[in-house]
Amino acid sequence: MSAERPRHRPSPEELDAAWARVREHAHRTPVLTSRTMDERAGAQLFFKCENLQRGGAFKFRGASNAVFGLSDADAARGVATHSSGNHAQALAIAARMRGVPAHIVMPEDAPAAKRAAVIGYGGQVTTCAPTLEARETTLDAVVAETGATFVHPYDDTRVIAGQSTTSRELMEQVPDLDRIVVPVGGGGLACGSVLAAAAFFPHVTVSGVEPALADDAHRGLAKGERQGPRPPVTVADGLRTALSDLTFGILRDAQLAIELADEDAIVAATRLVWERMKIVIEPSAAVAVAVALRGTYAGERVGVVLSGGNLDLDRLPWLR
Amino acid sequence: MSAERPRHRPSPEELDAAWARVREHAHRTPVLTSRTMDERAGAQLFFKCENLQRGGAFKFRGASNAVFGLSDADAARGVATHSSGNHAQALAIAARMRGVPAHIVMPEDAPAAKRAAVIGYGGQVTTCAPTLEARETTLDAVVAETGATFVHPYDDTRVIAGQSTTSRELMEQVPDLDRIVVPVGGGGLACGSVLAAAAFFPHVTVSGVEPALADDAHRGLAKGERQGPRPPVTVADGLRTALSDLTFGILRDAQLAIELADEDAIVAATRLVWERMKIVIEPSAAVAVAVALRGTYAGERVGVVLSGGNLDLDRLPWLR
Repeated sequence: MSAERPRHRPSPEELDAAWARVREHAHRTPVLTSRTMDERAGAQLFFKCENLQRGGAFKFRGASNAVFGLSDADAARGVATHSSGNHAQALAIAARMRGVPAHIVMPEDAPAAKRAAVIGYGGQVTTCAPTLEARETTLDAVVAETGATFVHPYDDTRVIAGQSTTSRELMEQVPDLDRIVVPVGGGGLACGSVLAAAAFFPHVTVSGVEPALADDAHRGLAKGERQGPRPPVTVADGLRTALSDLTFGILRDAQLAIELADEDAIVAATRLVWERMKIVIEPSAAVAVAVALRGTYAGERVGVVLSGGNLDLDRLPWLR
Repeated sequence: MSAERPRHRPSPEELDAAWARVREHAHRTPVLTSRTMDERAGAQLFFKCENLQRGGAFKFRGASNAVFGLSDADAARGVATHSSGNHAQALAIAARMRGVPAHIVMPEDAPAAKRAAVIGYGGQVTTCAPTLEARETTLDAVVAETGATFVHPYDDTRVIAGQSTTSRELMEQVPDLDRIVVPVGGGGLACGSVLAAAAFFPHVTVSGVEPALADDAHRGLAKGERQGPRPPVTVADGLRTALSDLTFGILRDAQLAIELADEDAIVAATRLVWERMKIVIEPSAAVAVAVALRGTYAGERVGVVLSGGNLDLDRLPWLR
């Protein structure tokens, strides 16, 4: 049994507390527009640049809500997680800002660059065998030894509440949006977005997107039954994760619609955003762009969450 | 003799007129900051993101000042220039916004992507042999035939006045800057910056940067005598141009100091900005970053003009 954590649906009060806490520490990221993208999509697109967030992804919002919500005594013992991706970097940054340790459990086959990034932000890395079991056992051992607080990448009330500030901020920055489109991986951002819209901007529809090769949420919501992850092959590596019971339940009750994009369209959308908007996004952030570009949201005012910009600049998706 | 144009130093009144005109058509580009970059530079850096300007470079400012400053009768006959770079795209965009033709003379060996970009913005391309003489003869013929107004990329009062809005806007956005650093190619941006500082923010120092392999302005200002261009080999391809008599005179009288950067430092700075700031800049924009990163401006509040973000995404500088 992996480490304890709050796993209920965040209440509007918890969303408000996260809003106050996260705004204090996260960048209020800009919203960019592009005539070229609008013409191609047949819609008015408002790009929420979480690639410009601390750590290069929206994940800092959830991590900072968790870290800064701890009591001084709990915080002093540090925080811990298992992740080789953006959440690990985000937690390390938030912990450093609070001046407490961050313990990151990473599989021994994680890319050296990701390990270096976490260490660069002051995180303490513990490696484990590349299995789910080893990861959880190692995490439990780290928590038992240090007394650190486990912060799960998405299956965690505090993290979902923190991620909710992404879409809430976007809805505040751009009045009269018809829709917000978010990528769905583990579901933290999607859950935060549907909860924020329901609580504060009920006229805004939230839609999800997934790579066709990682369509577990799409299939699960269609069947009414949570699906496990698919083989981790999509170029949108941040979206290979499957939903948890908590995130699946929130998205099912919100009747979230999910559109799929194929790999070629994801890569082309990634490149187009770099070329025309001059910003670096990772393929996971381009899935929503790919779906918008085929005219899915024609005629609407659409907020597109560009979820992150972390990728290997020596190995660009369109040059592989 | 190439086509006529105003070639005097813009007066403060002309700078004010450009300010009013350009603000109406150009993006007020954001200013980004980065803890990582500040730590490495030992300075507070404020990055003026002209890569996010229309057409992906500051050049739209000068082009739009020229295009929107024309009388209706002159504008109706169109505008013309010779350029295979950012100025050509910028002029095509500005002309399209005013609803008039843009005639672009390009050497027949210009990259297909640059030609396609100009055509994509509605420009009419005339090709010529890849010599200075052919370029001027062809331009003169286009101007004679169409009655279009020639807008030079930098040796032109209207263009210099338009470029001045870049640094003026930055000085307005970030109070109490000690210094603004700009790249020096043909000198339009540098001249606009020194004139704007002298007229409106006299406590701000303007500094120039050049690639060591294209140091014509540095050598010329040191000798007190304008130098011709060096062989076009630097990766910072926007800075291969030499100063004109007009731009040399303005920079000489302003006693502009110029720092140099070598090719490796330019490429490394380009990559670092992409990686840590998640924005796409071209090598010409990274020269100032390279100079700042070696501690040149330690302890200061420095505005760094990121001049553009146009480059071939299939051929990244660090992967060549």
